[in-house]
Amino acid sequence: MRNPRIPEAAIKRLPVYLRLLEELMGERVTIVSSAELSEKTGFSPEQIRKDLAYFGAFGTRGVGYDTEVLSRRIRKILGLHRTVHAALVGAGNLGTALARYSLSKYKDVRIAAIFDSDWDKIGKQIQGVEISPMEDLIPMVRRLGVKIGIVTVPAPEAQKVANQLVEAGVEALLNFSPAKIRVSQDVYVQNIDLTIELQSLAYYTSVASGEDDAETKSRL
Amino acid sequence: MRNPRIPEAAIKRLPVYLRLLEELMGERVTIVSSAELSEKTGFSPEQIRKDLAYFGAFGTRGVGYDTEVLSRRIRKILGLHRTVHAALVGAGNLGTALARYSLSKYKDVRIAAIFDSDWDKIGKQIQGVEISPMEDLIPMVRRLGVKIGIVTVPAPEAQKVANQLVEAGVEALLNFSPAKIRVSQDVYVQNIDLTIELQSLAYYTSVASGEDDAETKSRL
Repeated sequence: MRNPRIPEAAIKRLPVYLRLLEELMGERVTIVSSAELSEKTGFSPEQIRKDLAYFGAFGTRGVGYDTEVLSRRIRKILGLHRTVHAALVGAGNLGTALARYSLSKYKDVRIAAIFDSDWDKIGKQIQGVEISPMEDLIPMVRRLGVKIGIVTVPAPEAQKVANQLVEAGVEALLNFSPAKIRVSQDVYVQNIDLTIELQSLAYYTSVASGEDDAETKSRL
Repeated sequence: MRNPRIPEAAIKRLPVYLRLLEELMGERVTIVSSAELSEKTGFSPEQIRKDLAYFGAFGTRGVGYDTEVLSRRIRKILGLHRTVHAALVGAGNLGTALARYSLSKYKDVRIAAIFDSDWDKIGKQIQGVEISPMEDLIPMVRRLGVKIGIVTVPAPEAQKVANQLVEAGVEALLNFSPAKIRVSQDVYVQNIDLTIELQSLAYYTSVASGEDDAETKSRL
């Protein structure tokens, strides 16, 4: 049902609005202006109005947005009006930390199953969720209605794991492995590659030359 | 020295090229075409040629790129021709996993210091790097010439930690906290917010409605 014309960047801003709206609701704030949303998120008021207009959410001129109505609407747009089940594959350092962090923090996107191929890990629990063997992945993911797969296996395993998740009905993948995952076009893949984040960050420090000094000099 | 006209997306692709080039060098491949780079990275050959041309790296027509020359050039552009020091602040679940993962994997961007405010953690080691108290942050970051700061503290602490890192000379921040960090314009901030990643992923599943059904229906 998703509207393909809504840019990815706008979708990424919705959880930011949602978090802020829910904080405001916690403080019993019932109305918020786009100027206030702008002040607290750092996005321009124009950007905010444009983002929300994609979904037909218009504030009352001179008053603002109803925090409860808007947060409910954003939850629905994102599919977070009910719990979305996720499966995490690869209970190494990163996978374990992500599972622990995520399970302690989120209720709307819930890691319902964790898989690993290491029999030393299988049977152990992370925040109450047992680590299951890879052999159980397809039947469990199907049975639990898992829609999101979190891939934290080493690169050589990533494609195989992605294939299994997709075969079992997963519709969106969060890939932390450095491997390029290829799946059919109707499956959404978001890559988070920590190597790339760290290495590209170096570019923005004074250590980076921005050009090849040696070759530049050799031309002089 | 960085060229502000080079788009961020191109900078993010450089580590991908670098990884592939170094893999090829490991297999003793000395020349690679943009078609092969495309096949293995998923980026179009035009995109690859355009990215590399930003840095004056042109392949030999009909032959390709020299893997060693190109990888050396990319390392230099990114500032990875020598070790870049990073400091990680917040040795909780996520911080510990990131430190462990990063220290076991990278040599070019090296976590040289880890800080936490919890005296139960201070003095313990992660992959040989001792956790130091927050009081030591500014002098240690200065002394070690740390250029990259990794922020894995809870949201309410993030701004204060960022201020300290910047005061001590850090030029780029990788912020994993959900807080919006405000620093001077010459400091680069990259945010990785796992809540946002997970919540926006839900949008791409069939659970999401893409619009507000209830309101749509009420109009009928």
